[in-house]
Amino acid sequence: MKAAFYHGDETVTVGECTPVPPQAGQVQLKISHCGICGTDLHIYQGAMDKRVHMPQIMGHETAGTIAALGEGVEGFSIGDPVAVMPLDPCGECPACQAGHSHICQNLKFLGIDTPGAFQSYWTVPVHTLHRLPDNLTLTHGAMIEPLAVACHDVRLGEVKAGEYAVVLGGGPIGILIALVAHQLGARVLVSEINPFRLELARQLGLDALDPGETDLPAYVNRQTGGAGADVVFEVTASPAAAQVMTQLPRTRGRIMVVGIFSHPPQVDLFRFFWRELKVFGARVYEHQDFEKAIQLAAAEAIPLDKVITDIRPLEELDAGFKLMEQGGQVMKILLEL
Amino acid sequence: MKAAFYHGDETVTVGECTPVPPQAGQVQLKISHCGICGTDLHIYQGAMDKRVHMPQIMGHETAGTIAALGEGVEGFSIGDPVAVMPLDPCGECPACQAGHSHICQNLKFLGIDTPGAFQSYWTVPVHTLHRLPDNLTLTHGAMIEPLAVACHDVRLGEVKAGEYAVVLGGGPIGILIALVAHQLGARVLVSEINPFRLELARQLGLDALDPGETDLPAYVNRQTGGAGADVVFEVTASPAAAQVMTQLPRTRGRIMVVGIFSHPPQVDLFRFFWRELKVFGARVYEHQDFEKAIQLAAAEAIPLDKVITDIRPLEELDAGFKLMEQGGQVMKILLEL
Repeated sequence: MKAAFYHGDETVTVGECTPVPPQAGQVQLKISHCGICGTDLHIYQGAMDKRVHMPQIMGHETAGTIAALGEGVEGFSIGDPVAVMPLDPCGECPACQAGHSHICQNLKFLGIDTPGAFQSYWTVPVHTLHRLPDNLTLTHGAMIEPLAVACHDVRLGEVKAGEYAVVLGGGPIGILIALVAHQLGARVLVSEINPFRLELARQLGLDALDPGETDLPAYVNRQTGGAGADVVFEVTASPAAAQVMTQLPRTRGRIMVVGIFSHPPQVDLFRFFWRELKVFGARVYEHQDFEKAIQLAAAEAIPLDKVITDIRPLEELDAGFKLMEQGGQVMKILLEL
Repeated sequence: MKAAFYHGDETVTVGECTPVPPQAGQVQLKISHCGICGTDLHIYQGAMDKRVHMPQIMGHETAGTIAALGEGVEGFSIGDPVAVMPLDPCGECPACQAGHSHICQNLKFLGIDTPGAFQSYWTVPVHTLHRLPDNLTLTHGAMIEPLAVACHDVRLGEVKAGEYAVVLGGGPIGILIALVAHQLGARVLVSEINPFRLELARQLGLDALDPGETDLPAYVNRQTGGAGADVVFEVTASPAAAQVMTQLPRTRGRIMVVGIFSHPPQVDLFRFFWRELKVFGARVYEHQDFEKAIQLAAAEAIPLDKVITDIRPLEELDAGFKLMEQGGQVMKILLEL
């Protein structure tokens, strides 16, 4: 079997590795496809060198079939198609005890804190598995994880049919959020500066603009009769978006903070007060979000094939990172194992 | 009759003025007492010179009795004791149409955008009035407005009995928020640097600390078994508090932004994401908050006499501002008309 290893300093290699037999409560998966996440790019660029264990096998957006069952595992059979919710909470911290185990205070994220899915066979705890319907391809199965992020963000954002939603950032997560909100019946505007992504958003039936060319707050005001947006999703983690996000919502409107800010930006807290804004942080997903994502994907309610712009062999992981860094004609890249 | 006038440049004078007869839908009040608000101090210091109309009569924390009724006014009689909710919304903007008239997009705030209550007789729209119970003194009646702010903040903060609440800033609004939350059954910690206010908070039965002397996040963690606070009220509008506020809440805990930030501070949006924090802006009050404040005051559930540290004649408005600027041994100053 093969795996891709990160060695630090933007260096990845692909080579042989030894499969890990499943222990009690674990299963071994034969990986079919695994997407490259923005977080994998951050790791590649060295931003998380203190957290990962080199040589690190990354990858957590995956689907595959069950290859082996550990002792005592029930409810799954060899060959079952599954997606993995890559969270391993401690079960004991205050967050877990309060029922928020997806944001456990000692959370292990599979593929970051442990080896990930950029390998032919991946051994994971059985509690991470979600059975995929037989009509779902494993390429679409590999999209369940990022789609579950979008389902989580839209659910916590309390998006309702007929509402006006603005998504700041039209990368894979932003586009999936926009599509899930759109599918719910919201009017959705995507703000994005990359021309390829803007065009793709429009092809997907979404309204989209470049905030460098169009005055975003003025546009949103015009679209909403001067009221402002019902909900804004901040998915860029950029200081510019942190600044504009407070200008967009209506009185008591919502802002969802989805982007991962490495430095604290300036934020107009006066506007929080003035319009009584509600701001919610949203991180990863819960099991119900995985179930919702599987349901949407199986019903073909989200055009996943248009979001997947590249499917490449594992050996091209490095080329995939380079494509993402160039910010060119790319949305979601899947690797085939 | 007399009134206090603001002329710009930290200058106030007290002199004669002509009473305004009430028009249809208005009432004229004989003012008993009027508190000095932090907003009045901001006006005095010139921060709102573009908004006020000099010579400006400030003042909006007031109680009095009805002296005259305009045409068509029903439900009130001469001599009735009342408090004033000093908001005059347009009724037509998107915020008003959505039921958020207290944060109307064209809101007139009485005493800022129009003449206020630092005068013997004040004429206001009848819709601003709340009848006070006969057992409530008019000094306590003048505390209904700031107490309603606290009731609004605690209500929007969804504070429940047994929760751990941290109030950043132990000035009049912070102390009233702490007392309302405490009265609801929450465990309350006040963070404050002024020794007089710290001591007063402790005398009022609240836990209180100086964040310059005690590590606030570590203290809150110890008090909550490592979980963090259920709710944090930011009432200082200081960059330091904007920084610490994100360190205090538990996963999915709440931050209430009550302070009025004149400059956008740096805010750790990563922490919003990481702990899925909920942040709510809270501004002024709604009628139900005035009713709640009146109910609490009439039941003597809040020790208002200890929060009122000075009662002075109107002529000492300037001295009152000076006391507040010195940040000395002062909490709420009431002026007697």
